[in-house]
Amino acid sequence: MSAPADISTVWEALARDGGRIVYLVLDGAGGLRDGASGKTALEMARTPNFDRVVRDSACGLLELVGPGIMPGSGPGHLALFGYDPLRFRLGRGVLSALGIDFDLREGDVAARINFASVDSESRVTDRRAGRISSETNRRLCDRLRNAVQLDFDGEWFLETVAEHRAVLVLRGPNLGGEVRDTDPQTTGVPPLEPEAQTDAAQPTAELVRAFIGQARDALADEASANAILLRGFQRHAPIPSLQARFGLKGLCIAQYPMYRGLSRLLGLDVVAPPESLDAAFGLLADNFGDAHDFYFLHVKGTDKHGEDGDFHGKVAVIEAVDRLLPGLLDLQPDVLVVTADHSTPAVMAAHSWHPVPVMIRAAGARADGIGHFDEYACRGGLGQRPGLHLMGLALAHAGRLNKFGA
Amino acid sequence: MSAPADISTVWEALARDGGRIVYLVLDGAGGLRDGASGKTALEMARTPNFDRVVRDSACGLLELVGPGIMPGSGPGHLALFGYDPLRFRLGRGVLSALGIDFDLREGDVAARINFASVDSESRVTDRRAGRISSETNRRLCDRLRNAVQLDFDGEWFLETVAEHRAVLVLRGPNLGGEVRDTDPQTTGVPPLEPEAQTDAAQPTAELVRAFIGQARDALADEASANAILLRGFQRHAPIPSLQARFGLKGLCIAQYPMYRGLSRLLGLDVVAPPESLDAAFGLLADNFGDAHDFYFLHVKGTDKHGEDGDFHGKVAVIEAVDRLLPGLLDLQPDVLVVTADHSTPAVMAAHSWHPVPVMIRAAGARADGIGHFDEYACRGGLGQRPGLHLMGLALAHAGRLNKFGA
Repeated sequence: MSAPADISTVWEALARDGGRIVYLVLDGAGGLRDGASGKTALEMARTPNFDRVVRDSACGLLELVGPGIMPGSGPGHLALFGYDPLRFRLGRGVLSALGIDFDLREGDVAARINFASVDSESRVTDRRAGRISSETNRRLCDRLRNAVQLDFDGEWFLETVAEHRAVLVLRGPNLGGEVRDTDPQTTGVPPLEPEAQTDAAQPTAELVRAFIGQARDALADEASANAILLRGFQRHAPIPSLQARFGLKGLCIAQYPMYRGLSRLLGLDVVAPPESLDAAFGLLADNFGDAHDFYFLHVKGTDKHGEDGDFHGKVAVIEAVDRLLPGLLDLQPDVLVVTADHSTPAVMAAHSWHPVPVMIRAAGARADGIGHFDEYACRGGLGQRPGLHLMGLALAHAGRLNKFGA
Repeated sequence: MSAPADISTVWEALARDGGRIVYLVLDGAGGLRDGASGKTALEMARTPNFDRVVRDSACGLLELVGPGIMPGSGPGHLALFGYDPLRFRLGRGVLSALGIDFDLREGDVAARINFASVDSESRVTDRRAGRISSETNRRLCDRLRNAVQLDFDGEWFLETVAEHRAVLVLRGPNLGGEVRDTDPQTTGVPPLEPEAQTDAAQPTAELVRAFIGQARDALADEASANAILLRGFQRHAPIPSLQARFGLKGLCIAQYPMYRGLSRLLGLDVVAPPESLDAAFGLLADNFGDAHDFYFLHVKGTDKHGEDGDFHGKVAVIEAVDRLLPGLLDLQPDVLVVTADHSTPAVMAAHSWHPVPVMIRAAGARADGIGHFDEYACRGGLGQRPGLHLMGLALAHAGRLNKFGA
């Protein structure tokens, strides 16, 4: 398969309206077969509702970013949403800021912070400072806000994300974003210097260096969180919205900050985080209507259990989603897409490069008559293709693409 | 499948190390079904060892260069090694020079020579001069070295390759490489003129014209080899190494010059040519260790018999490789890739465009449970994809790619 993977390149074919699309994204749902059962979590799960729906769906496999590439959740979702993840690169700092509802503005430079532990020789002993509580994090941020003085024509913001994670935002004129991570990604060595990688980033690197130095002094008496590590520096440049690119008014239902932040970045409306899987499906039903054309329902549990190496936990989440599926079908979305943003095999306890199954259920789908939704069964008529192809297919199935050319 | 087919475009995801990769390339192994047996050579071959290993492997088909494109061995191998063969174009002259250990330097222009036979009207009667011996070739090269005088600010080299094949290298300032082949690729017509195809190649074309004229005079009294045909002119520009692009320290085990030359061009270490298939596998075992991460074992026999239209000869080579497979498996490579650089159906007695099977055996492979390694059985989860995708997959399976993006 090749061009146009990015359906926005044939924007003249975009219809002004069309049917409603639901993306049900089971984060990290793809996997590998378990040694004991000989099945993947999706194969193992008893899913009578999926089994019924997949039969009428067009099925295939998505290679989210590229062959062998292990997508972070950001690039994985960008691909699903029709944004080339190699063109739209999202730094961890920007995503962290968006994930806590921080009002990030064009030109802001954001970086993700880890509170960390260093020994008397400034060598990192714990990159997460023993996973301090969010409460401790808030106290540390207060300390730093009071202690640090940065001398520049602008403002800076330090915000707690959760546990050991925080975000630093520098706002001022002419701040480049290309600064090297100070997080060495390992222990036993000192943090790296925040080197500017372009001339435009020199002033930013200077500010960061000052920030780190003053933070070290301010945190010197802390028991565990006596240092900070920064990574994922990026200058915030807005991305064209889902509406601008595809004419879709979107709604995001997601519990985790990163997915809400990413959705906001793409111009989706974002509901308050649901407390549970049931609540998430309930919010979809409550908000399903004329105000939106595109609904993104994000399920984190599949990835979380995969990351924890908990095969059966992952199976249980899939089965829980299956039990909630009839309520979603009652809404009669014109297009239902079920897929994942990457694989997270429990046996690897990490993201992986393996393709994920996808099913598209719609009146115009060329149904494959497949009986189960999993990595092996879903080798249907959609074939195996890049994640970026999905949005074009979803729009087409929703009647949102006109004839291309005369 | 689309971007990034070329994994080097996401170089930030490259890990510093990882497992060892073995590429077992059966040259031209893909084919078509034989009229008598109704099987391809790969289908026909009895391969108990492959049968066992393929079961635990991820399988698919590779379209080496593009749909309908019939790859030469150079482009086919470049694709397998992760170099876009449409971007990295290798002339036959450069490959011939590298294949005989000629110390080719940046800016040298190389062309492949065939000693040929022409009649009294200068029409080609045999493009290979009756496949003269290498000894005759060496004598002819000596004659030409003594007879030809080229008037330019540089040096020229004429070297025997084997049989009717030699290589001409022009070394001097400002020599362009875009000169048209003089080999008409057929008999009954005179050789073509060495036309410059760019202004920069005008001086080169002049030198080549002088060379051809003086060579014709010098060889006029030869019984069969009374002319030369040149093709594959190219100015030599170094290619980034496998280590620079992918962090791989490579080792090549190949009997034929072209594959050794290509490997050297990509910065692989190259062992002395093995005398036999057994010796090649022996060299792999002898050299398997800490010094290299990537091992390329090239098997020529499959292609040779395919080119000769010898279906059963091709089957026999595949079966011979199968018998040697257990020794390779004993080395416990982290990733074993078995594939081909193109198809050479015996029924066509030539290279063809047909995709070739590929299998990737590794701990993290999403195994397809396929029972035989051939063009029809290997329709597994890897799908059908460009040859260029292979390197990303091999790196991923070796744990040599980090997560891409947050």
